Parts: sequence; structure tokens; C-alpha cells
Amino acid sequence: MKKNLERIKNSSLHSLVVGANEAASWIQDGMTLGLSGFTRAGDAKAVPMALVERAKDEFFKVNIFTGASLGSDIDKLMSEAGIVNKRLPFQVDATMRKNINAGEHLFVDQHLSHTSEMVRAGVLPTVDFAIVEAISITEDNMIIPTTSVGNSSTFIKHANHIIIEINSAQPELLEGLHDVYEPEVQGHRLPIPLTKVQDRIGTIGIPFDPEKVRGIVFVNQQDSPSLIVAPDQETEDMAQHLISLLREEVKVGRLTENLAPIQAGIGSVANAVLHGMIDSEFEDLTIYSEVLQDSVFELIDAGKVTFASGCSITLSQETMDRVFGNLEQYRDKLVLRPQEISNHPEIIRRLGLISINTALEFDIYGNVNSTHVSGTKMMNGIGGSGDFARNARLSIFVTKSTAKGGNISSIVPFAAHVDHTEHDVDVVVTEQGYADLRGLAPRERAELIINNCAHPMYKEQLRNYYEEALTRGGQTPHVLEKAFSFHTNLAEHGSMLEKVESLV
Amino acid sequence: MKKNLERIKNSSLHSLVVGANEAASWIQDGMTLGLSGFTRAGDAKAVPMALVERAKDEFFKVNIFTGASLGSDIDKLMSEAGIVNKRLPFQVDATMRKNINAGEHLFVDQHLSHTSEMVRAGVLPTVDFAIVEAISITEDNMIIPTTSVGNSSTFIKHANHIIIEINSAQPELLEGLHDVYEPEVQGHRLPIPLTKVQDRIGTIGIPFDPEKVRGIVFVNQQDSPSLIVAPDQETEDMAQHLISLLREEVKVGRLTENLAPIQAGIGSVANAVLHGMIDSEFEDLTIYSEVLQDSVFELIDAGKVTFASGCSITLSQETMDRVFGNLEQYRDKLVLRPQEISNHPEIIRRLGLISINTALEFDIYGNVNSTHVSGTKMMNGIGGSGDFARNARLSIFVTKSTAKGGNISSIVPFAAHVDHTEHDVDVVVTEQGYADLRGLAPRERAELIINNCAHPMYKEQLRNYYEEALTRGGQTPHVLEKAFSFHTNLAEHGSMLEKVESLV
Repeated sequence: MKKNLERIKNSSLHSLVVGANEAASWIQDGMTLGLSGFTRAGDAKAVPMALVERAKDEFFKVNIFTGASLGSDIDKLMSEAGIVNKRLPFQVDATMRKNINAGEHLFVDQHLSHTSEMVRAGVLPTVDFAIVEAISITEDNMIIPTTSVGNSSTFIKHANHIIIEINSAQPELLEGLHDVYEPEVQGHRLPIPLTKVQDRIGTIGIPFDPEKVRGIVFVNQQDSPSLIVAPDQETEDMAQHLISLLREEVKVGRLTENLAPIQAGIGSVANAVLHGMIDSEFEDLTIYSEVLQDSVFELIDAGKVTFASGCSITLSQETMDRVFGNLEQYRDKLVLRPQEISNHPEIIRRLGLISINTALEFDIYGNVNSTHVSGTKMMNGIGGSGDFARNARLSIFVTKSTAKGGNISSIVPFAAHVDHTEHDVDVVVTEQGYADLRGLAPRERAELIINNCAHPMYKEQLRNYYEEALTRGGQTPHVLEKAFSFHTNLAEHGSMLEKVESLV
Repeated sequence: MKKNLERIKNSSLHSLVVGANEAASWIQDGMTLGLSGFTRAGDAKAVPMALVERAKDEFFKVNIFTGASLGSDIDKLMSEAGIVNKRLPFQVDATMRKNINAGEHLFVDQHLSHTSEMVRAGVLPTVDFAIVEAISITEDNMIIPTTSVGNSSTFIKHANHIIIEINSAQPELLEGLHDVYEPEVQGHRLPIPLTKVQDRIGTIGIPFDPEKVRGIVFVNQQDSPSLIVAPDQETEDMAQHLISLLREEVKVGRLTENLAPIQAGIGSVANAVLHGMIDSEFEDLTIYSEVLQDSVFELIDAGKVTFASGCSITLSQETMDRVFGNLEQYRDKLVLRPQEISNHPEIIRRLGLISINTALEFDIYGNVNSTHVSGTKMMNGIGGSGDFARNARLSIFVTKSTAKGGNISSIVPFAAHVDHTEHDVDVVVTEQGYADLRGLAPRERAELIINNCAHPMYKEQLRNYYEEALTRGGQTPHVLEKAFSFHTNLAEHGSMLEKVESLV
């Protein structure tokens, strides 16, 4: 306890230390909570858990706003406990996903750079309690965040009350890594003065009004490790195609061997693609991304990446042990920012990022579905992919050409849900190859996508669709009554393939 | 001629004056032309016309890049002459539209803020000839544009050759209205220093390399007047709904009576909506838009608008006569910028615009189709609507709830083409009412859109669809095999209504 208290440098706040159960008891039915946490990193852990406990004896529902996904099974347990009314802007938990799709929780799928703006503008319900994980509290009333910044600074600024969770399992050496910058309201705002990946434009912690702090809770619990799947042959092939594309850009003089700051989405495919750069000729790379995953630290270790800016660090257990055990050697190569800044259109366009995100499916014209299985069931959410794709120098979407043993083609006639329109998608990559769609009209795109990216077992079926569509004419030819035939095939007989019951 | 020569202040360029036919003769098959012109304003007129003439005797095709749409029937005549290979980023001509949809020309439908970036990055074919209309050429080698800036500064900077059309029908008093700012390449760029609508950040003309000027052509021809349709009862109702929405924003303290800088898309509906503000209580308004249409000048005349920033001035003949005949009284209230700056995400988000654009149709979840009739046939193009909708403080789409005498419902189960996803659409407005979708989950959105915006004759049909979709579940419930049933009804029996052959 004494050692914990040392993490509260402003000793006038010591009297606010309470247990998690007491803090949770302040939260009332109908309230809105703003939780720290982004991709399983830096999430508030103790108070949400105590809330779940409380729900065993009491009925209540709250709105849960976060940075992005939470770890520690918090979304799962809150969902099972039935205490979630509205959840935003992103989640990845299987149980919560099931309940969202059953209509049990309202889920608002937002661009990750937009939530802060909406809180600031007073468009969303007022945050009653910001509950934010911290390493420590400074003498001059700043919260030093842990492994993510997320939306915490906006929640803290605009919430009615603040609860701080000081987590002694998070390394104190994280202090100094953060760069907290909170834009003014729209119309009274200056340019965001960030012009290089490594620029520091803010403070090392989140300033707060001590009057708003209701309680401080101690906790000692590591972040949940990420669940990265190891690269396989197909993701390695995709990495190679992507490297070929970048090599071509260097060859024609549009990029140098330092490329441009790279953003890579969450997940195994993007991670594998980044990993593939270790053995490439590219040098002195920089990362300007949301989540810093294992591959970023592998690239730093390999001397390939000189600086990485993110809004969270989400690592496998093995990499977590290595990185957090040797944080000194990474500290001068890292910065963690609010997600509004890591994902800000102003910065993404200014820096001219190379943006790599995962598609669930895309259509023959390059419209991308990132979120909805068969157009209806939410997978995770759009996350930051739209922030990046719209404004990047090079907006790349990657996916394996098939799923479920070949029963699903990731290339379809018409995306069953559109998160990224043809206007925002520069290049699509599968293990089959890549299609560079820049400057191409829809009819040119269709040819290239079917030829370069579709799996051979679906090429003829896609070509047949496209050829029938051409007989109807139009800028973007379609046969509307058959546009979702791949998806209805799948629903009816378990495969998108025509005239085949099942492949396996 | 002498009077014309006076408009070329750098007399060393006088020797470059040629006839339009001679200038047109330099253009070869396969070349790419970058033409001035945005929404029928400030288009290069003489050389394109001479090219059309030349096509009577000779076969050739060129790529035509512009700011946006051209006037003077240039797109029509070029299309009829068969000289267009690829056209981007926007057009509105009926003949060219027909030929695009027939697959005669390749049309690339781009966000209007993106074309400059792609030219600068070398992603599009190199512009062989920039052909740009001017009022005059300054002594220190700047082109003073006319009624639009469009992409001209980028074309001029990156083209191999320049042809300047000096149009003596354009008022010389336009000089001083323009503010030309050209960002550096990505990664070597500073923040765009514009923080208020009226800020001037660049030069009054477009600097050029005199070595690249191949010819200067004189022309004396007014811009084509805009074809604004007068407001009708339905557009007036929409204007009133929109004003109610804004009034509500003021009431809850999210806006003041000065609102926020307004962007309004091209066309009669947006024009009518702006016009409706004349009799509102809102004061000291500012405009930060692409096209300054009649309504902007009516609002200036009414003392409602204190400053308007655009990238073109497109007026009806009557308003053109009035405004250009009295330009002195408007000069200090206007600025014309490159479309990259008028539509730049950095600026739109910083200023926090209220953005009003026209939808062709939207679906029950708020996904908007701005471009493709029944998902296939191109109408005009996305224009700047995506630039604005993504980044605005308040992103509003307006459309009448029905078209073609009620045979078409503008609210459908699934948008047959998606230009703006649910993530980017805050409010939808029809003559029936408005639906404020901010912070709502898809199931909440569907209820509100059907109740508030759909035409009574389609409400039951939409509700039936939605209720069947709910039985399937999901974050965004759909019945994929019936998702386009409204559109296939229309194709089959001339009406989206079920069980009705035709209404009229």
C-alpha cells in the first residue's frame, strides 16, 4: 500500500483511495462510462470487474465507451452480466459479438478518430464516469497512462467524475512515452503541429481537474496478451506481393527505400505482412499506426524501424516479457498518442502514410467490407481502417482469397456491406497477387481484381457474373438480382460455389 | 488585340500568342490534358472546341482531367466527337453520361480533393498539356484564374506544357479574389495555415514556369450559366426541416446563432435549402464550400452571410449579370481557392463545417448512394460530398423521398451503390422530415429513417423488409435475397412499389 501510494505524487489525493467495489457502487443505472483501453492494452480492469460482480445482485445497464477493444475478458463478462446498453466504438470479444448480433446490446461502429470529436461536441451522452488506468499521478495533476492512450484524455476532460486505476503491474518506465494533445473545439482550433512521426506536441500525461476525481483504486494485473496467429504460407505470400508493390513504387520514383510512415491494422495478416519486411531491402522505416504489435518490435530489433508512433502497445506474452523487461532500449524510439491524433485525417494526409488494413471481403470493383459477415453479423468494427484508408498516400487492403476451406470467396460481385468505397481503396492484396486500382475506372478494376486476386476456383464464377453485368451496361455494371448470389449460395448450401454442395 | 495583349503584363510572352486551332494541333493521340473548369465555371473553352473541330478530320483520343464539370457543352462535344479516352474526376453532361454508361469512355469518379494529390504523387498519367483559362498574366509570371481555381495550379505545376486561354469576357475585377496555395509533397509538408474561413494563405495567382508555356490563346466567351431549378414545395419543406435541426442544435448549446461555416453541394436542392436561411434567425453566417451558387449571393445581399470561400462561382444568367456587374461590392466578402484546399479534410475538420449534400438514395441504415442510378448507371460523380461528409461537424444529406412521380423511393432497404457509409452520415433529410443518426446503432437508425423520412406510400413496404430482416438477426439486419427488391421491382414493372404496375 505504501509503495502504491508513492505512485500518487500529489499527496492531497491520497485520501481518495478506495476499493474497487466502493468505486463501482457509485455507478448508477443509465449512466455512461468512458473506459481507458485500446486493443486489449491499458484497459481499466478493477472497477469494470467490480461492476460485473455487483450485477449478480442488482439490475442495471450502462453505456460503455472505450478507446477500442478491452482485454481481461471485460467485454465478455459485462456482456454476460447483461449490464451493457450501448457500446462504442469498437470491440472484439466473441460473447459480446454474439449478443450484439442478437440485438442484446446497441453497438455503434465508429471511425476511431471520431469518438473524441463527438464527446467534445456534446453529441454523445455525457460521460458520467471516466475510468482510466494509470501508472501514476504526477504532483501537478496529470495522469500517466499505461500501455494505451485511446480516448482517455477526452473522457477525462469531459466526464462529470473521474476514477483512476493505478496498476502496479504496468512498468513505471512507460512514463515519458506518452504525448497527450487535445484539440480545441472545432472552429477555435489551430493546426495540429505534428509534421514528423517522432514529433512531440503535447504533455507526458493527461491533465485533470482534481475536483472531479471521485476515487483512486489500486490494481496489480497485466494486460491480456495479444492472440497473434503465426504467419502461414498464405500470409507470407501476401507479404511478398506487398513488398513487390512497394519495390515497384521505389523503382518508378514514387517512394525511396525509406518508404513512408507505415500504418498496419490489428490482426495476424497485417502483423505477418509487417514481419515480412524484416528481410526486405527497405531501411530506416518509421511507423505511424494505432496499435504497435509484435512485428513493430521485431522490426526495431532488426534495425529496420527507427521510430514508431502508436496509441497502444499490444503484444504477445513472449514479446511483452521481452519489451517491458528491456524498456530502456525502446524508449527513445516510441511515442504513444491519443487515438484522435494517431488516426487524425490531418496528420495521415500530411505525412502520406502507407496504410495496410485487413478486409473481410471486397467486390470486383474494389469496395471493401471490413466488418459485417454476410452483410449482417458484426465481426469487430471498422476501427481506424477508414481514418487511414481515406487519407493515406497508399491505401492497401489485404485478405486471403478464400476462407472456410474454400467455401467462402473473399472476392464477391457486390460487397454485402461497404465500409470503404471504391474511392478510398488503392490496392487490394490476396495470396494470389495484388491489384493496383489507382486511377482506374470500374471496368478496369474488375478485370484486374478477378485476374490478380481471386482464387482460381472462383475466377470463372466471378467472370460469368461480370460478363452478364456488362450486357446490362453502366459505369459499374451489375446484375442486381444476382449481386448477392455468392452470399445466398453460402447461406443455402454452405458454399459460395455454384453447383457444389460443400468442398470439405 | 492590343487590348487583349494588355492582359499579358509580361511582354516577353506576347510572342506566344497563337490561334486556338494552332494550339489544338500540338495535342497528340494518347496525350493527357489538364483543363481548368469547375462546375461550368472558368473552363478552358477555345482549345477544347478547336480539338473537337480537328476530330472531324482525324482520329485521336486523349485523357481529360479537370477540376470538375465543364460548361459550354465541351464535355458533350468532346464525347460526341469520340476523342475522350479517360475522363476524371467529375462531369455532369447528359451525352457524356450516356457514353460513360455505355462503356465508351473510362470515367474515374474521385473525391475532388484527391486528384491534385494523385497528380502531385505521379500516380496518374503525366499531364502533357495544362490548358487553363485566365483573366490575365502578371508581370512576375502568375496566371490570374477566372471564375474557378479547381485543379489548375496543380496541373500547371506538373504539366509538361501550358496553354493559357485569356478570356476577355471574364471581369478583370476578379483579380485579387483568388488565394492559390499548393501543398508540398506528402512527408515534406507543413500544416495548411488556414484557421478561419476568410484567411488568405497563398498568392493571388498561379505561379508558372514561362519555359513551359507553349501558347497563349485569346477568347471572349462567358461561362455557361447554371441551370438551377426554382425551389418547389418539397425543397422548401426540406429547408424548413433543416432549419429546425439547426435551431435544435442552437437550443442545446452545440451551435450559436452564427452556426458554423456552411458547405452546400451543387444543385437545386442544396441551393433551395441555403435560400431558406434568408428568413431564418441565423446571423453572421460564413460559407466554406466548393461552388458558390446563387443562394450564397442572395444570403450576402440579405446581410446574412459575411464571408464566402469557394473554389468556383457558378451562377444563373440573372445572378451572373447582377454579381459580375457589381463585383466591387462583393470583393471583400469572397475568396476562391484550389479545390484541394476548399475540400481538404484537414481544413474541413478543423473548421467543423456544416455540410449539406444531395443523395440519390439512402438505405434504412443511413448508407448513401450519391452517384449510381440503380447501382449501375453513373449520374455525375461523388464530387466533394465525401470530402465534406467524412470530416464535417454535421454531415447532412438531403433528397426528396420519392422520384418519378412516386415510382422511385429514395429510401431503400440497401443502397444499390454506397458512396458514403453509415459512419459518415449524421443526418438525412427529406420533405417528410429529418432523422438525426448521430450516436445511434443501426437498429435505432432504421426505425428513425423509416418513421421520419420515408414517403407514406413506402413506409409499410420498408417496415415489412426491416421486420423480416430482424428475424435473421445481426448488427445490421438484412434479407440479402430481397435487399435490392425495390430496384428489381423498378426494373421489372416501372415502380419500386410492390403489387402495383405503375402509379401514373
